[in-house]
Amino acid sequence: MVDILFAGTGSSIPSRERSLPCVALRTGRDVILFDCGEGSQRQIMISPFSFMRIKAIFISHLHGDHLLGLPGLLQTMSMSGRKDDILLVGPAGFRDSVNCLTRACNGEIDYKTDIIEAADGDTFVFKDFVVRAFAVSHGIDALGFAFEENERRGRFDRAKAISLGLTPGPDFSRLQNGETVNNVRPGDVIGPPRRGRKIVYSGDTSKCHRLTEMAKGADVLIHEATYSFADSELAREHMHSTSHDAASAARDADVSVLIVTHMSNRYDDLGVIEKECRGIFPNTVLAKDMLMFTVK
Amino acid sequence: MVDILFAGTGSSIPSRERSLPCVALRTGRDVILFDCGEGSQRQIMISPFSFMRIKAIFISHLHGDHLLGLPGLLQTMSMSGRKDDILLVGPAGFRDSVNCLTRACNGEIDYKTDIIEAADGDTFVFKDFVVRAFAVSHGIDALGFAFEENERRGRFDRAKAISLGLTPGPDFSRLQNGETVNNVRPGDVIGPPRRGRKIVYSGDTSKCHRLTEMAKGADVLIHEATYSFADSELAREHMHSTSHDAASAARDADVSVLIVTHMSNRYDDLGVIEKECRGIFPNTVLAKDMLMFTVK
Repeated sequence: MVDILFAGTGSSIPSRERSLPCVALRTGRDVILFDCGEGSQRQIMISPFSFMRIKAIFISHLHGDHLLGLPGLLQTMSMSGRKDDILLVGPAGFRDSVNCLTRACNGEIDYKTDIIEAADGDTFVFKDFVVRAFAVSHGIDALGFAFEENERRGRFDRAKAISLGLTPGPDFSRLQNGETVNNVRPGDVIGPPRRGRKIVYSGDTSKCHRLTEMAKGADVLIHEATYSFADSELAREHMHSTSHDAASAARDADVSVLIVTHMSNRYDDLGVIEKECRGIFPNTVLAKDMLMFTVK
Repeated sequence: MVDILFAGTGSSIPSRERSLPCVALRTGRDVILFDCGEGSQRQIMISPFSFMRIKAIFISHLHGDHLLGLPGLLQTMSMSGRKDDILLVGPAGFRDSVNCLTRACNGEIDYKTDIIEAADGDTFVFKDFVVRAFAVSHGIDALGFAFEENERRGRFDRAKAISLGLTPGPDFSRLQNGETVNNVRPGDVIGPPRRGRKIVYSGDTSKCHRLTEMAKGADVLIHEATYSFADSELAREHMHSTSHDAASAARDADVSVLIVTHMSNRYDDLGVIEKECRGIFPNTVLAKDMLMFTVK
């Protein structure tokens, strides 16, 4: 399973309730981050996730609210004894930004940082999953990211295996490793391979066809919804999304669940945004700080 | 009166309980900050202080834990409509650091920032108070700061004024403005001028004679106590203070109250540091996040 932690769900200005943007995914022992706004390290400390397990950090664009938690987190990991390399991915200009941020505060990082400036279509391959970067529309170089697990083995039908005379234990392992056991073939008890889980993160964007294309069939689409529909003009002006933009992307991409985040703190009652989304895409969740969502 | 808000009381690594260093002083309508670690803007939002009232930010040294909250706070004030100038003071290299931090995240600040690199002895004059910078010992250019209110008018003896036949209202105002009223002279009912309040902030430092000198007679000395006495060797190595260093500075400077902060999170029980301080200087308070201390 994959756990999604909403470490920060505010937009450009934090509030009492919402820290700056950061979404963490945990799969097996690995954690990756999408964006790292100011305060992310402490939000992760407060959560059940371990910041020492972070393999990679993907920054959607170089606005402060998505980026300024990075140097502090990198330093904290170094002071906490990290030796493993880390992958840092962002849009054009990212290398200069990271170097600038760490130089400004005399930061010494005692492990290797692989800093990559990504463009639309770039894919980052990990052992059990890939992350694909794609271009979104935010007025500056801006990326969204699609997390896709490798194809998973089919389901093992335990009851059927027992009914065919096999005993739980070594027999089951051998079947799962592709061996025939007592004339029972793997295909008799193991279903077809299953598509890996897919989770797509929009970053900051106005309505964007490329995002809908990349989100096709995702288990979860995490989409910004800075504005309510009534503020569509503001959304266009600042190249952000409304509730309708987020929900129609979810509908068009035929995802299972939409989770909206990055709501402007101009709204006292975010129920409006939730309701507007559900009118178009019923399976919508409104993110809040420290929400944990598990994709089984 | 002056209110001191301990917005962040951790040391280099934050914890669940402690955010990164930031102390805010409020006097009248003005707020000033000593240090601005990551997360300070949100800590201030959660407090009764208004971040829009910040007149000046004093950064003790250019280590990330004292500095990385600055660009986000500056941006938030800009996005919230600030137009007033702000004074930013730090040690040598500070201008480059601030410019680097704001450039790294495409930060547009819609008000004027006066960035000053201060050295020992520099004094910053405000309407009702001054802030003096002084050099401390931390292995890199590092400053402490002394906040000193202007001399205050003597106490007005209301009961005596009434007994001399005056009526509360315009008569009292005229006396307070230096006029003689019905043969009562101001000196008859107004005491001698009083020294302004004095609050001294150590920044990060090992034992430092200059600090003790600058803290002479302060109402409050806010002193780092990263280590317990048992870890004196570590303190020397990293050029930080122990409980004993902080408390002996308070004793030698003859201050009224010592508030210790910046404790390392290696200690499960900070009662040890508090106890060690009190053994030398009984009037010690252990800072915690969001503690508000009022100097009357």
